Amino acid sequence: MRGAVTECRTEEETSVQRDSRDPVIIVGGGFGGLAAARALYRLKNDIILIDRVNHHLFQPLLYQVATAALSPGDIAWPLRALLRSQRNIRVMLDEVRGINRADHRLELRDREPISYGALILAPGSRHSYFGHGEWEANAPGLKTLPDALELRERMLMAFEKAERLKGTPEAREELTFVIVGGGPTGVELAGALAEIGQKAMAPDFKVLENTACQILLVEGGTRILDAFPPELSRRAQRALESLGVRVLLNRRVQQVTSQGVLAGSEFIRSAHVIWAAGNVASPLLKSLNVPLDSAGRVIVRPDLSLNGDPWVFVIGDAANCSGSEGKALPGLAAVAMQEGRYVAEIIGRDIPAGEREAFVYRDRGILATIGRAKAVAKFGPLSLSGVTAWLVWCFVHIFFLIGFRNRFRVMFEWIWYYLTFKPGARLIYWKERRHLEDH
Amino acid sequence: MRGAVTECRTEEETSVQRDSRDPVIIVGGGFGGLAAARALYRLKNDIILIDRVNHHLFQPLLYQVATAALSPGDIAWPLRALLRSQRNIRVMLDEVRGINRADHRLELRDREPISYGALILAPGSRHSYFGHGEWEANAPGLKTLPDALELRERMLMAFEKAERLKGTPEAREELTFVIVGGGPTGVELAGALAEIGQKAMAPDFKVLENTACQILLVEGGTRILDAFPPELSRRAQRALESLGVRVLLNRRVQQVTSQGVLAGSEFIRSAHVIWAAGNVASPLLKSLNVPLDSAGRVIVRPDLSLNGDPWVFVIGDAANCSGSEGKALPGLAAVAMQEGRYVAEIIGRDIPAGEREAFVYRDRGILATIGRAKAVAKFGPLSLSGVTAWLVWCFVHIFFLIGFRNRFRVMFEWIWYYLTFKPGARLIYWKERRHLEDH
Repeated sequence: MRGAVTECRTEEETSVQRDSRDPVIIVGGGFGGLAAARALYRLKNDIILIDRVNHHLFQPLLYQVATAALSPGDIAWPLRALLRSQRNIRVMLDEVRGINRADHRLELRDREPISYGALILAPGSRHSYFGHGEWEANAPGLKTLPDALELRERMLMAFEKAERLKGTPEAREELTFVIVGGGPTGVELAGALAEIGQKAMAPDFKVLENTACQILLVEGGTRILDAFPPELSRRAQRALESLGVRVLLNRRVQQVTSQGVLAGSEFIRSAHVIWAAGNVASPLLKSLNVPLDSAGRVIVRPDLSLNGDPWVFVIGDAANCSGSEGKALPGLAAVAMQEGRYVAEIIGRDIPAGEREAFVYRDRGILATIGRAKAVAKFGPLSLSGVTAWLVWCFVHIFFLIGFRNRFRVMFEWIWYYLTFKPGARLIYWKERRHLEDH
Repeated sequence: MRGAVTECRTEEETSVQRDSRDPVIIVGGGFGGLAAARALYRLKNDIILIDRVNHHLFQPLLYQVATAALSPGDIAWPLRALLRSQRNIRVMLDEVRGINRADHRLELRDREPISYGALILAPGSRHSYFGHGEWEANAPGLKTLPDALELRERMLMAFEKAERLKGTPEAREELTFVIVGGGPTGVELAGALAEIGQKAMAPDFKVLENTACQILLVEGGTRILDAFPPELSRRAQRALESLGVRVLLNRRVQQVTSQGVLAGSEFIRSAHVIWAAGNVASPLLKSLNVPLDSAGRVIVRPDLSLNGDPWVFVIGDAANCSGSEGKALPGLAAVAMQEGRYVAEIIGRDIPAGEREAFVYRDRGILATIGRAKAVAKFGPLSLSGVTAWLVWCFVHIFFLIGFRNRFRVMFEWIWYYLTFKPGARLIYWKERRHLEDH
């Protein structure tokens, strides 16, 4: 049947049918891919979920692993365990190397190529250095558990080194953290670093003063959190400043070196520049041979499929899907999850291309936390800040975590930290082996 | 004053006095070193605790991190945080490279040498391969958090690979785990691997059969757990066998390769040989220039000090201290902690060498767990096994964990695992970065 389809292939999408013998393949087990997999629980076809890692990661809380407030096991869950009860699905730990649309096949790193009947691409995004890939070595980002553990150990080691080098300029650079990018990740990371530096680390390093740790947040635009109303941006900035964070606006990063960062015309000396400024979609999408936007995302049709290929869908951070205002939808978990469920509905009900209603994102609101009892939130016309927003933030994040165990553990850690200011995960072990091997 | 002491140095210990201006230095933050540090809380002198890592590790539960039942943060705690309230102590993250007894100085990796008034050496032990150091690459041991995470990921990856290679001999080798050494570590690890293999992993890998995972425990002697009465050894063996573990007695390991292990005259093909067979004390002790026993331990005087150097003490796994039966005391946490407190008492009360009572170990009993509701225990003349011993084991381990947070977390994880058989830490991330760098 597939041969026939390939031969009489036309640009008339409705004529391209799905080969129902081949499995539905989902690439990526993030918010979008997992939502699609779960929504397909009644599907008669086989489903294969492929990911490079064995776990789903709750990325909105990744910065808390990086700041030692949570452990990796608190915010990640094995994909196989999550999908254990879903009989029609198979999880594959592998990496998709290329997509052959003509033959409906995926090339894999560790296995023979496999055929798909329908394809859901949810490969996510990476950091974008706006054409300066060489900055990455000196300004790592925060996307994966290894990124978070790397940052955590750098932060913990910085205090150890600063104590040893006390009084020298190097000590000051070790305790200067520059975060590039004033979006939610940058803001949350800056707040969390300021808090752990002052409240948790300082008392453990008696010879250092309380003010030894400096956090700077560098933003190229006129305000931080530009997805929020201007008033909330101002409040978030004041909250950060009350924690001792220096917020620098209208400062484009010109250069990153091992010595620090050139932000606007000021060179800030720092041993730790952290990149939270931009994203670029997975390079896998290039093998689709379709037009990509400037962030590497696929410009999808209103039903999230490819032009001329109605059973290949792109969702989440990898898709450029226009919202109601004509702008591309933001890279949020909520967008990805709604897209995943929407695509699952089309596949589950086998809706031909001509009969699909366009995807509509239902905006349930946005949230960002700055620190203990400090957050901002926007729900439709309603703006919240301070303790109220923070409580909503806590509740929403606990609610969306997967499984009772993780909810319970994270809640326990938060209450513990709130009461004691002693985060539990300040362990240096990630580099221990390599370090021991060096000597 | 030190100059004078050095010049008129004699073998008459009582004449060697402690220079009270120099700090008391503790090398190693394990059970012995930490117990000594805490017991010295009233000391007027400065105390410096030096460790290569920033955390105290609760080693008896390390095998549970290796088998994905617990997270690193559940069984480790930053040394600085543990000793935060003790004003007279300073924690240094560093490595002692040499001990210069003539000048009372320690050489460090990252700092200038420092002088000590009294020295407590608690550097612990490493794996011993009985002269076959080349086996280590194919038979890693379990002493540190990196060891445990390495083993955890190997175990999790083995199931992934076996699923991909299903039906081939390689798949069988991937799921064959050989543990060398029938002491408590080997027994606990074998039991935990068998349980997680059958109960937690098998349901997540639907194409593998339940019996696909094979665990072998290889012991050179006539029985496992030889510190326990023979009847308990037999019960422990039966309990392991009921979990599907093959226990091989009287099998000396002749060879370890990447293909497997030659145990007695049988070559067992396995991709995963784990070493739990022997210990050798830290190589640092060689720089003391004193006689060491065959396991590299310092043969200490009855007060745990060195011959001719009454303010240099060696405790824990690094010391060969004779017990009441003339045999060296075993490498147990309880021994190390009692030794640490004993030495702290001598230093705290400044007891001259001639007036010290010999150290006496108070044996409070020994315990080993095999799996869910299976354990053996010996308290003086009392032998326990089964559920009773297991409950005692759980209680004792929770009790000796440090801090409310860790006790609570570990208890929660155990109850969760007991009820659901879904251990929470089955995450592969340790090698993720290196893996991604390879491609």
